[in-house]
Amino acid sequence: MTPTNVVGILGGMGPAAGADFVRLFVEACAAQMRARGLPVRDQSFPEHWLAQVPVPDRTQALGSADSGAHQPLEPMLQALGRLAALGSQAVAIACNTAHAWHAKLQERFPQVELLHMAREVARHLAAQDAGRVALMATEGTYRVRLYEQALAEAGLECHVPLAEERRVIMRGIFDGVKAGNMPLAEECFSQVALKLAERHGPVTIVMGCTEVPLGLQGSAAVAGLRLVDPAQVLADALARRAYRDVQP
Amino acid sequence: MTPTNVVGILGGMGPAAGADFVRLFVEACAAQMRARGLPVRDQSFPEHWLAQVPVPDRTQALGSADSGAHQPLEPMLQALGRLAALGSQAVAIACNTAHAWHAKLQERFPQVELLHMAREVARHLAAQDAGRVALMATEGTYRVRLYEQALAEAGLECHVPLAEERRVIMRGIFDGVKAGNMPLAEECFSQVALKLAERHGPVTIVMGCTEVPLGLQGSAAVAGLRLVDPAQVLADALARRAYRDVQP
Repeated sequence: MTPTNVVGILGGMGPAAGADFVRLFVEACAAQMRARGLPVRDQSFPEHWLAQVPVPDRTQALGSADSGAHQPLEPMLQALGRLAALGSQAVAIACNTAHAWHAKLQERFPQVELLHMAREVARHLAAQDAGRVALMATEGTYRVRLYEQALAEAGLECHVPLAEERRVIMRGIFDGVKAGNMPLAEECFSQVALKLAERHGPVTIVMGCTEVPLGLQGSAAVAGLRLVDPAQVLADALARRAYRDVQP
Repeated sequence: MTPTNVVGILGGMGPAAGADFVRLFVEACAAQMRARGLPVRDQSFPEHWLAQVPVPDRTQALGSADSGAHQPLEPMLQALGRLAALGSQAVAIACNTAHAWHAKLQERFPQVELLHMAREVARHLAAQDAGRVALMATEGTYRVRLYEQALAEAGLECHVPLAEERRVIMRGIFDGVKAGNMPLAEECFSQVALKLAERHGPVTIVMGCTEVPLGLQGSAAVAGLRLVDPAQVLADALARRAYRDVQP
């Protein structure tokens, strides 16, 4: 067996996005094997665990008074503790908004490297000289300025949609993907993506909620646009951690 | 939160099939919610855990002398024990061939209901009066007569491909899906499926290896054929266990 590191995925936010994250991670692992000249076979994949746990709505908690603001933290802490106990050396959270609690989660389990989706995306975009960036995300993610901060640290500016467009994104996430209505999701997301491209010219759109790529990818309406999937970037980063000690 | 049961998925055989099984399970859970008139939202999904662990090749072990025949058992036992410790009341194995060790796994962890993929498929086909059935699977699955037995118990006969066709299936599994070469997988699998349909007339083809649907589904070449995906049947069965105690 290949001497890979055990890694974990904290999902359930939502579950379809968690499942898709595992798919992306498995593909990213195959790419790591190819880069090292290893044959791609079951036994060369790292042991990995996916925890899909029910977590109260993140955006709602971030909009509520202080008493409710940390409701999502407890189930995430518990799941992360279990992923750590299973031997995970690195863990990825398959939800952008949940990163509002990243520091608190990392603080409690310092033995695990808890990847940060927005910082991974910022590094990725800075490395390819992305130019203008616009963000499609949940209200919660805008509220805590998750991407604005991470992108600013990498020297990139972040454009955000208008209030009305944000409501359309939230509709695509909740009434679309999370409720299993994919045509509605595609309609909502593509509408906003096209408006962002119209307003900002050549722009890289960060699909900063794990539900957005599920509804937008493969959509003919946005075929010409430059889209970045943070889940893909994060899955690549997690695969790099898993294969860190594997020699080419 | 909905009072669902915690369930587990034993995967890694291969990892792409494990990831796809979670996707099928999440969709099956949404169907359970709809059937009970519950809104489909993150918090109504059951807690579920996916273990993707490296397991020695199942078919190879089943073909070897006694000493190697139980090599895959140890890592599966360890992962199943951990899924049980996480609170799983029912567990599904996302690999057909691995069911050769089903009895040994179930025996060690009697507190967990370990679903049996071939028996679930047999029940499913018997309930819909499927008629003639043909099986596409690994050499290991043919060797232990996994589906032949389960289907016979349900009063159904099982046709199997010729030796040369089985070799083509194995090529599609290993050089195709597991190695990431999907066009090759589709070519191999559709070739055999068409031969089975030609030989046996109106027949339901059981895609009895989790890699087969990954390469065959959506293939235009087999558009007219009646295909059954055991992973889908098993995911539905696992979702029923998760929602067993949820009142409509």
